[in-house]
Amino acid sequence: MSDVKKVVLAYSGGLDTSIILKWLQLEYGAEVVTFTADLGQGEELEPARQKAEMMGIKQIYIEDVREEFVRDFVFPMFRANTLYEGTYLLGTSIARPLIAKRLVEIAKEVGADAIAHGATGKGNDQVRFELSAYALNPNIKVIAPWREWDFKSRTDLLDFAEKNQIPVPKDKRGEAPFSVDANLLHSSSEGKVLEDPSQEAPPYVFMRTVAPEDAPDVATYVEIGFEKGDAVSIDGVHMSPATILTKLNDLGRDNGIGRLDLVENRFVGMKSRGIYETPGGTILLAAHRAIESLTLDREAAHLKDSIMPRYAELIYYGFWFAPEREMLQALIDKSQEHVEGTVRLKLYKGNTIVVGRSSPKSLYSDALVTFEDDRGAYDQKDAAGFIKLNALRLRTLAARNKLG
Amino acid sequence: MSDVKKVVLAYSGGLDTSIILKWLQLEYGAEVVTFTADLGQGEELEPARQKAEMMGIKQIYIEDVREEFVRDFVFPMFRANTLYEGTYLLGTSIARPLIAKRLVEIAKEVGADAIAHGATGKGNDQVRFELSAYALNPNIKVIAPWREWDFKSRTDLLDFAEKNQIPVPKDKRGEAPFSVDANLLHSSSEGKVLEDPSQEAPPYVFMRTVAPEDAPDVATYVEIGFEKGDAVSIDGVHMSPATILTKLNDLGRDNGIGRLDLVENRFVGMKSRGIYETPGGTILLAAHRAIESLTLDREAAHLKDSIMPRYAELIYYGFWFAPEREMLQALIDKSQEHVEGTVRLKLYKGNTIVVGRSSPKSLYSDALVTFEDDRGAYDQKDAAGFIKLNALRLRTLAARNKLG
Amino acid sequence: MSDVKKVVLAYSGGLDTSIILKWLQLEYGAEVVTFTADLGQGEELEPARQKAEMMGIKQIYIEDVREEFVRDFVFPMFRANTLYEGTYLLGTSIARPLIAKRLVEIAKEVGADAIAHGATGKGNDQVRFELSAYALNPNIKVIAPWREWDFKSRTDLLDFAEKNQIPVPKDKRGEAPFSVDANLLHSSSEGKVLEDPSQEAPPYVFMRTVAPEDAPDVATYVEIGFEKGDAVSIDGVHMSPATILTKLNDLGRDNGIGRLDLVENRFVGMKSRGIYETPGGTILLAAHRAIESLTLDREAAHLKDSIMPRYAELIYYGFWFAPEREMLQALIDKSQEHVEGTVRLKLYKGNTIVVGRSSPKSLYSDALVTFEDDRGAYDQKDAAGFIKLNALRLRTLAARNKLG
Amino acid sequence: MSDVKKVVLAYSGGLDTSIILKWLQLEYGAEVVTFTADLGQGEELEPARQKAEMMGIKQIYIEDVREEFVRDFVFPMFRANTLYEGTYLLGTSIARPLIAKRLVEIAKEVGADAIAHGATGKGNDQVRFELSAYALNPNIKVIAPWREWDFKSRTDLLDFAEKNQIPVPKDKRGEAPFSVDANLLHSSSEGKVLEDPSQEAPPYVFMRTVAPEDAPDVATYVEIGFEKGDAVSIDGVHMSPATILTKLNDLGRDNGIGRLDLVENRFVGMKSRGIYETPGGTILLAAHRAIESLTLDREAAHLKDSIMPRYAELIYYGFWFAPEREMLQALIDKSQEHVEGTVRLKLYKGNTIVVGRSSPKSLYSDALVTFEDDRGAYDQKDAAGFIKLNALRLRTLAARNKLG
Repeated sequence: MSDVKKVVLAYSGGLDTSIILKWLQLEYGAEVVTFTADLGQGEELEPARQKAEMMGIKQIYIEDVREEFVRDFVFPMFRANTLYEGTYLLGTSIARPLIAKRLVEIAKEVGADAIAHGATGKGNDQVRFELSAYALNPNIKVIAPWREWDFKSRTDLLDFAEKNQIPVPKDKRGEAPFSVDANLLHSSSEGKVLEDPSQEAPPYVFMRTVAPEDAPDVATYVEIGFEKGDAVSIDGVHMSPATILTKLNDLGRDNGIGRLDLVENRFVGMKSRGIYETPGGTILLAAHRAIESLTLDREAAHLKDSIMPRYAELIYYGFWFAPEREMLQALIDKSQEHVEGTVRLKLYKGNTIVVGRSSPKSLYSDALVTFEDDRGAYDQKDAAGFIKLNALRLRTLAARNKLG
Repeated sequence: MSDVKKVVLAYSGGLDTSIILKWLQLEYGAEVVTFTADLGQGEELEPARQKAEMMGIKQIYIEDVREEFVRDFVFPMFRANTLYEGTYLLGTSIARPLIAKRLVEIAKEVGADAIAHGATGKGNDQVRFELSAYALNPNIKVIAPWREWDFKSRTDLLDFAEKNQIPVPKDKRGEAPFSVDANLLHSSSEGKVLEDPSQEAPPYVFMRTVAPEDAPDVATYVEIGFEKGDAVSIDGVHMSPATILTKLNDLGRDNGIGRLDLVENRFVGMKSRGIYETPGGTILLAAHRAIESLTLDREAAHLKDSIMPRYAELIYYGFWFAPEREMLQALIDKSQEHVEGTVRLKLYKGNTIVVGRSSPKSLYSDALVTFEDDRGAYDQKDAAGFIKLNALRLRTLAARNKLG
Repeated sequence: MSDVKKVVLAYSGGLDTSIILKWLQLEYGAEVVTFTADLGQGEELEPARQKAEMMGIKQIYIEDVREEFVRDFVFPMFRANTLYEGTYLLGTSIARPLIAKRLVEIAKEVGADAIAHGATGKGNDQVRFELSAYALNPNIKVIAPWREWDFKSRTDLLDFAEKNQIPVPKDKRGEAPFSVDANLLHSSSEGKVLEDPSQEAPPYVFMRTVAPEDAPDVATYVEIGFEKGDAVSIDGVHMSPATILTKLNDLGRDNGIGRLDLVENRFVGMKSRGIYETPGGTILLAAHRAIESLTLDREAAHLKDSIMPRYAELIYYGFWFAPEREMLQALIDKSQEHVEGTVRLKLYKGNTIVVGRSSPKSLYSDALVTFEDDRGAYDQKDAAGFIKLNALRLRTLAARNKLG
Repeated sequence: MSDVKKVVLAYSGGLDTSIILKWLQLEYGAEVVTFTADLGQGEELEPARQKAEMMGIKQIYIEDVREEFVRDFVFPMFRANTLYEGTYLLGTSIARPLIAKRLVEIAKEVGADAIAHGATGKGNDQVRFELSAYALNPNIKVIAPWREWDFKSRTDLLDFAEKNQIPVPKDKRGEAPFSVDANLLHSSSEGKVLEDPSQEAPPYVFMRTVAPEDAPDVATYVEIGFEKGDAVSIDGVHMSPATILTKLNDLGRDNGIGRLDLVENRFVGMKSRGIYETPGGTILLAAHRAIESLTLDREAAHLKDSIMPRYAELIYYGFWFAPEREMLQALIDKSQEHVEGTVRLKLYKGNTIVVGRSSPKSLYSDALVTFEDDRGAYDQKDAAGFIKLNALRLRTLAARNKLG
């Protein structure tokens, strides 16, 4: 293992990645470079810098990648109306490739020969980090301490921390009742108190949305504007991608929108139960489907629907930088050229209700319906022929089957 | 046209199908047999009998087909978690093949050479009726009066009614503000006041659910039991299919669940806007997905998801009795053998929230996770190899692309 | 019908389209503009000009569109390894959109309000012509004389020709034993003597290839070079698209390659039997698959394979200019960026045998296999983990099913 | 490792599996039970028995599984017209699940706690064996000596053999120029002299078919009869599944049919080059497609084609006993109910040419085309309406796009 001289670590500043930082220094004797990203997880980043400095790190990367995250990852995904297993908006999955990409880029900049991450050996995130990294640099070495070290228990970890002067916050001395991941798109909670899928999640698990019961008794209306399939404005005001998602998150949070209690199938082969909160994303999905309903041709829409489960699977599994994802993206993006207009939504106690859509590119509008009014845009007699020819093979079958 | 001697008409007892009845008698000089089905639309059927008798009909079929409807059409469809265009539960579509089937069967019983329906020439229902009928009897003649007669306006129709002693209810003298279809699974409203998709539907359009705002302030909990993918019990009490759906409708109605405002793509080529209410179906879909999340293997679930849009399209377009639908059904049904257990849901002001699922056939339960506890059911080291081999092709690509 | 003032006719110069020309003049009283395309069908175009002139046509379009045909239609289709129903290379289907496109363009140039074609009412070509035309100009009027006129038989047609001074070649006085369509990609024969699918096609049907039995006893070797998925050279010599296909046709013809006897399913609902000869295309398909086998990633290739049947169907049905075809094309084209290199084939008495492939972009080459030789590109131990995690869900299932 | 007491080994009687046998005895100290199957690989099985006896094996299973192989594995696969990556008939892949199944069954019978196979750590077969085994018994232990032992080279292996009195045939002292797998469906050759995909395979690689050049100058005709999608007769004579495949192999071999030179993508992530010979299977595939062309409905056929690549992938990867394969099989089998009739083929120097098909269940036959002759089975006027409604969305799009 001693061939690693310099390693870039995805560093949150928290206890676990601080332990990893130290472990890399000790086990690998490697210089560690830290990378801390603001993905909208809602935590201060300065403490991460201070901790890193305290642990002797010389090269510290701290970056606000929220705009890149929403513009280049979240929005392209939403163009496909992506849902994993029918319900999950992929909030954790979609952030991993971006982090991996920066790790690989920084490794190149600083001349590191490895990257390291804090994902465990039982989850999906290890796969997402590593597939992304390998796809971007086939020769990169990836260190996954959770799969390598010999700690057998939480106590071993805390002992290691103590022995190495890593401060352990009081609330981390016991085990957390569940684990959390967060970014601008969502928060997820899983493990421990959530492990029994027959039991309702306790209220304190939710950290990002009010309960529907606690949301206002009066509905909130909002209008989202779209261009080429991406949200570009709220209530008529143009905003940057991250600003839009932030604003929708606020609206969703206040109105109790975007909670999900799910048992899902991990890529590594087991089922797990998670609680997700995706307030803004839930609103965005409804709005995007609505603007597409007006501006997308039927067969374009159905083709998108038919490939969506595969596309979602690819993102969930970690294949964002794989050619098959890029091919599907090319198909999806091609469909969005005219997806433009405004959707009006009513938000009320957990409900996201589409109440209106309009578009200069509508395939529904009167201007179009009358495109050849003088000749009759639609002749009901045509329906007879349409049905007859669609029925021909069924009648042939019926006649054949009678013979049989 | 005079070669039709006897025709079976799908007869609701309402004004429009009464006009059709008379028109068939006059235009075709044919004996008319009426078929009126109780699909759970919530109307008395006896008036239909009386009207038919008054118009001289000798063979009157009035049938309660609710159990057949739910058992043989609705439930098989729900096994696939079917949604058309991502949101529509296909409440109207799924009822048409059953009606067509009975029309064809009755035609055979009574020696009729044709069937007739009251669907217009611009909608999907004409296609659904006729494709189903032709698939069941290739030689049947289908009469679609709305495509054939010369009435140019509502006034022409009312004149014809008056001239022929067909009573016109006062509220039908003007045009209805929108048109309605209903059965045990849903109610749909479309046309007229709903035609502008940018305008919120007026409250009076909703007839089957209370508004979320008017639903109780306290959540209702319900448990749905499943066997082989079908709902079999509510709160531990076994019930027949139609009883279950009726009960779920009540729960949904009271809690403001199942409203949908949609722009959809018709098979005949245009977009239309509809308001749907599917209270029980909305609950059932959430529950079915939840029990599958526990009992269905990942790849089985993903395969189902990948074919669902096609399956939904087939039902929406009217191909229920086509071989491709039956092939997909065989695939779906094969997956449901172990879909068994109980789902607990919280219903609250428009929200259907899954809060628990349990199953004797769970793929999640502890009993299974420990199937080889002594040997280690899951070795984190395996993940390294898993990732390495999944990454191999991506690394090869990355190396190749660098060369290029 | 009298509202048509000027119509552009797809005119071959043959008897049938000459009759149509005259019929349009008489029935519609319209000025006719003719369009005759050299698609590589192997016929002189000058006679078409002379005939048109004789019939009083003032605007005569005669164009060599072979390069456009191969470059913009045939090659994009071959990028997908397109086969309809597993075997048919779509030689007729792919030519129709190009003809329709030119008809619509010419109509605009000359101020015509309609276009006309000579396809019959039972086949696929009418659909392909008309869908393409409507997709390019929603207000175009399409005249399909075969669906409109009252001729009941071949004799009626010949009478009309005679009455209107249209010369009838001697060999057209009786009915042809089968009908033919040809272009640079293929020749098709169907109808009459070929209608019984249990009977072997008589040798005289084949017009474009020698019988395998009559091909040389010594194999011919050829090398095809590719760039971005398209053939660009033969035996090291760069050529234009149409030149390449012409050259491959010669090689195929001489070696008895590309014959196909097929029962296919038409879009209009019936089965038909056809004899196809696609000499160059058959070689091209094998070569393209071979160069992809070396340069395309597994998942990219499998994704292409999975959408190919749908893509083929779209072309066969006539939806070339539909958004869903363009979306699929975007996906396909995205995959072809690195599809580059040379394929060596052996042609022998009907066989097209791939015997070698090489590429600077190979994903197979030794240079790549050793990309991290020092670290071990492939560790057999990884396979154990790979299998274990792939098996996890199957083991869970097996344990669960035992319980059941 | 010492916890394995008894292990069932897939034993061919050859040098490699003999070394494995001995290695298992020495390394694991386990009792070894051998299983040798006659899959039609064309080798005597008695020598395997004698060798096993010589090495002290007490429980020796030698079985002729050819009928089971063809009936329960090969034929179900051919119902789908299965081709991996467009060309490979999966001859090796389809045999593995059967062997794994018998290993697991025998392990249960003899009370063994493990099974062992001789597949290497770089190939697909290890995956196929092990996934199959785990799917059938989640607690089985699988020993893959090639991934476990410390032999670094062929020499190490031979040393081990010599030291342990395992006779090494003279022709095995050097390395084979390529490796071979064979069964009733096919023979495959790969490795060594075949590793450069740019080089034509040397003639001596082919062992199962004559070269097309050496095949008879006169074509052979054969008729294959089908019932429910499976071949049941040749030239009118009913035969068992294995007999039919054997007979077709003879015909294919004599006529130079079924050779394939391929670069394929392995499940473990790399490309490999193989030479396959599938004489009978190649004929069977053509015949099956032909009988389907007559008896299968268009949409049933297209649905099958659309899922085929996934189905092929599952078999190639080793997921025969996975629920998703069984679901697809249910879909496929559902489609085959009426796939019945006779196909006439012409075999000539490498070509398999369909020249005729007939069926009592034909969807093409005249008896059907006239099912309502009096009413007109097909009205050309219907085509106008059919096209108009199919075009409606394209015209709407064209009008909209003009506005844009």
